[in-house]
Amino acid sequence: MHESGDIPGIGQYDDFHTIDWQRDIARDRMRHRYIVKKKQDSIWNLIEGAHDAWSGWLCVLLVGLLTGAVAGVIDIGASWMTDLKFGICPQAFWLNQEHCCWSLNETTLDKGGNCSQWLTWSQVLGQSTTGAGAYIISYLFYIVWALLFAALSASLVRMFAPYACGSGIPEIKTILSGFIIRGYLGKWTLIIKCVGLILSVSAGLSLGKEGPMVHIACAIGNILSYLFPKYGRNEAKKREILSAAAAAGVSVAFGAPIGGVLFSLEEVSYYFPLKTLWRSFFCALIAAFILRSINPFGNEHSVLFFVEYNKPWIFFELVPFIGLGIIGGLIATVFIKANLYWCRYRKHSKLGQYPVTEVLVVTVITAVFAYPNPYTRMNTSQLIYLLFSQCGISNADDLCDYNRNFTDVNSAIEIAAAGPGVYRAIWLLILALIFKLIMTIFTFGMKVPCGLFIPSLCLGAIVGRVVGIFMEQLAYSYPKNWIFSGECSTGDDCITPGLYAMVGAAAVLGGVTRMTVSLVVIMFELTGGVRYIVPLMAAAMASKWVGDALGRQGIYDAHIALNGYPFLDSKDEYAHTSLAADVMQPK
Amino acid sequence: MHESGDIPGIGQYDDFHTIDWQRDIARDRMRHRYIVKKKQDSIWNLIEGAHDAWSGWLCVLLVGLLTGAVAGVIDIGASWMTDLKFGICPQAFWLNQEHCCWSLNETTLDKGGNCSQWLTWSQVLGQSTTGAGAYIISYLFYIVWALLFAALSASLVRMFAPYACGSGIPEIKTILSGFIIRGYLGKWTLIIKCVGLILSVSAGLSLGKEGPMVHIACAIGNILSYLFPKYGRNEAKKREILSAAAAAGVSVAFGAPIGGVLFSLEEVSYYFPLKTLWRSFFCALIAAFILRSINPFGNEHSVLFFVEYNKPWIFFELVPFIGLGIIGGLIATVFIKANLYWCRYRKHSKLGQYPVTEVLVVTVITAVFAYPNPYTRMNTSQLIYLLFSQCGISNADDLCDYNRNFTDVNSAIEIAAAGPGVYRAIWLLILALIFKLIMTIFTFGMKVPCGLFIPSLCLGAIVGRVVGIFMEQLAYSYPKNWIFSGECSTGDDCITPGLYAMVGAAAVLGGVTRMTVSLVVIMFELTGGVRYIVPLMAAAMASKWVGDALGRQGIYDAHIALNGYPFLDSKDEYAHTSLAADVMQPK
Repeated sequence: MHESGDIPGIGQYDDFHTIDWQRDIARDRMRHRYIVKKKQDSIWNLIEGAHDAWSGWLCVLLVGLLTGAVAGVIDIGASWMTDLKFGICPQAFWLNQEHCCWSLNETTLDKGGNCSQWLTWSQVLGQSTTGAGAYIISYLFYIVWALLFAALSASLVRMFAPYACGSGIPEIKTILSGFIIRGYLGKWTLIIKCVGLILSVSAGLSLGKEGPMVHIACAIGNILSYLFPKYGRNEAKKREILSAAAAAGVSVAFGAPIGGVLFSLEEVSYYFPLKTLWRSFFCALIAAFILRSINPFGNEHSVLFFVEYNKPWIFFELVPFIGLGIIGGLIATVFIKANLYWCRYRKHSKLGQYPVTEVLVVTVITAVFAYPNPYTRMNTSQLIYLLFSQCGISNADDLCDYNRNFTDVNSAIEIAAAGPGVYRAIWLLILALIFKLIMTIFTFGMKVPCGLFIPSLCLGAIVGRVVGIFMEQLAYSYPKNWIFSGECSTGDDCITPGLYAMVGAAAVLGGVTRMTVSLVVIMFELTGGVRYIVPLMAAAMASKWVGDALGRQGIYDAHIALNGYPFLDSKDEYAHTSLAADVMQPK
Repeated sequence: MHESGDIPGIGQYDDFHTIDWQRDIARDRMRHRYIVKKKQDSIWNLIEGAHDAWSGWLCVLLVGLLTGAVAGVIDIGASWMTDLKFGICPQAFWLNQEHCCWSLNETTLDKGGNCSQWLTWSQVLGQSTTGAGAYIISYLFYIVWALLFAALSASLVRMFAPYACGSGIPEIKTILSGFIIRGYLGKWTLIIKCVGLILSVSAGLSLGKEGPMVHIACAIGNILSYLFPKYGRNEAKKREILSAAAAAGVSVAFGAPIGGVLFSLEEVSYYFPLKTLWRSFFCALIAAFILRSINPFGNEHSVLFFVEYNKPWIFFELVPFIGLGIIGGLIATVFIKANLYWCRYRKHSKLGQYPVTEVLVVTVITAVFAYPNPYTRMNTSQLIYLLFSQCGISNADDLCDYNRNFTDVNSAIEIAAAGPGVYRAIWLLILALIFKLIMTIFTFGMKVPCGLFIPSLCLGAIVGRVVGIFMEQLAYSYPKNWIFSGECSTGDDCITPGLYAMVGAAAVLGGVTRMTVSLVVIMFELTGGVRYIVPLMAAAMASKWVGDALGRQGIYDAHIALNGYPFLDSKDEYAHTSLAADVMQPK
């Protein structure tokens, strides 16, 4: 290769150094000039010139392909191992519960989603499915599997790749702003993060796989960029690939390519020329397309929480939506402050020396308290999906225990009084909220791969659903009130509690991460309708303002500050309010 | 007001000067410092500080509200006056044809969409609706109205606001990059542009109202920014408001708020700090929300071309989609080169001295040739909508003359052989394509408000629909071929010609404007499904690459260069391939 860019005496950067953007960009210009100049010399040089021009696109194409494929593997693996905590598919042990039942073409599932093909652990041991004995066996198996997965995850991280822990987004932000952390995006980190992520998600800990997906995508981007010296040998140019990879990571995490690009632009990237925008979009789209072709969820939708309802909302509902935004901002502030306090304590006390033990203790506590409550026992993504969705004829959960009769599938859903099941569900959800909030505070920052998109969304979705049911019952009780009179008087269900859950989820996530546009776009892509942008935006704004008023930093910036990374946000305006004359003292 | 930012000796900028970004930003920092410092002094200063902090949000809120309202008025006015060319609603002359028929609750429309309430001009004159006499009367009325509208539009522009002509986007780009054109965003330009736009759209000229909507929104932004001295008195800060206004303009033009923000970011803005992203989004959303509340199209959708189909596409179809991208890039290049040639000729010949005459001649030619062909006679937006849509039971156009029987509304649409009507429609569409291409070349750049989003989309939609029908018939004839075997063998309509029209439209628009991400996002928002992003993206990329290979500049950059504005694209990388040593000659 032409080493024309290597100026003698100036080599690569050392670990924990900050790159010189101007020098690297100048180096790239020199390299480019050299190639353009040589282009006329021979056919070979012409091909080399063309390869150089295309290498950026080729690189993001490869990143997109690999990110999509890896995300598919992680999704399938996590879903299988999560179900392994509950039982096994004896005919085909590699299938999760859902696919196991599908393979039999059995359509009659019981309330828990079980089919005869799928054996719970108590059944495997020859016990019945109900009764105290079965419950205890299932409980024990749940805890043992959780401990096993968590122990494996923490040990792998400790032994092979310490950088694989956490969500990785604070570090990615720092790296993209020009800092060098050797090995943070290396192949060992990539492998261990993938395996550890599957394990820690399956362990049922209060964490998500969306944040780490960004780290994984960036690691893929980093590794593949070495195939193209233009990017691999130039740290400034490499960051263009990493920005695109971050977009692909969010794209596969949520099935939201546009949201991914905006996330990369808004949240993680530092140097984002317009060329990168287009490439990021391409990369995000390829990744989403591959993931969708793999179809890990076994349905047509690549998005995580596909909702089908398309009901209008009443103008007055903006009041509870903004209220949810404020509550979301408060919850987020509590979470950030408590989590930071705990992380600081971990850093400065003896606790930090026993990362595996800490993980095991948290896992045991999580598993013991999570199992009795059906809403915490289930997968967090499933819970969010349940909270987001509309009560229809097929939804047999307690949450849908309304006093109404469905005549057929296509009948309109009427507004109805909540049955006792709904109130039971509300109490369980409130318990789940408290439990999840506490556990997430202790979980985020442990030495396993863990993201907090999903826990944040879950906290918000619970609050939102509860508020939504409250509003719905209010509309049912006072249909003639001026607030509801326009839309609710006809007997149709004018309040959609699932929409409140969605708005609440956006509010908490917005408060925690301080995302704005990208958050709204991701939620918009999940629902695929322009209709709900205004409520989502109102809640996201309220939440961000409350969060900003109570504590300036989002969780990622707070963790950057905690770890002492040298990060100067290019998006901040540093308003210097004092002049030198104001602070100088006469001698 | 506190004039703390006014440094003695440095006043405002003169006309056709370029602003000093650093100085203006420094001035704003000084002003901010002053306000923060005085905050503690008294309650009044505290309120003033709060007002200062909020004024940016308040300003974009007002811009959004007003932009939405103005867009609603323009939509309603243009739709009414367009129908005035054909007839009148005697009971309520202020209603357009559609609303006139609605007001009667008449559901039996004939093929042309007529109802008994609506009188064509031949009916008004006591003639029958059919026959040669009626045709000639309608033809004459069509031409006379068109001439009247066009003459009025051109005269208004010439007399009151010469800056109101054209699309305005090249000038907005230049202004946002820091150039001063006094009066370009003033109140006279705003008023005349609104009125002139309604008139020139109604005249049936081959132009759209989407580009000028951006100019109108920016003028609103400029005028409202004077309410807030922080923005009105600081040209650099004012550009933040203008960026947000541009987003609102595209948002109301297409009903696509996210696309609008990305358009502002990608295409027109120069200085776009992240704070502006969030505000632009807010502004775009408010504007879209207001427009939707006004509901000018009388349906639930605020988007211009709402499509309902949601069919999957076959992987092989990427080949024709990329082919459409290449054709789109070629058409765009032909258009740009021919239009530039004509504009240059106009500029340097005597033609430029007779702008009104030119408009009248083009209008007569357009009207005379447009009327006989039903596809050019109808509103261009309607034509695009027709081309985008799927042939259903209710669609009685020639384009849907397939040999199939619909049993009921919900039955699946089977693939079928095209009837003679389809072939007739194809010939008419090809004639329309040639006609529109030629007329748009001569129209864009005339001294009336005129945009070219709609004509570009229309050109592409025609090509796409024709290719789509060809593919559909291919799939019908060879259902067993390996290409189609997977999806088409079941008899379902596996090829959606409307999707081809959409892809073709994106390709030509992409080629003309060189938009990329924003184009795909706008088209995505029009359809509201993630499903078609990949085809749209493939076509947009192919088109952009073909366009870039054949001529470096998009139409806006070409017009900037033509008019000699001082514009240095911040997004370009100026690769200097020659060293001083290479060009120096030994003396």
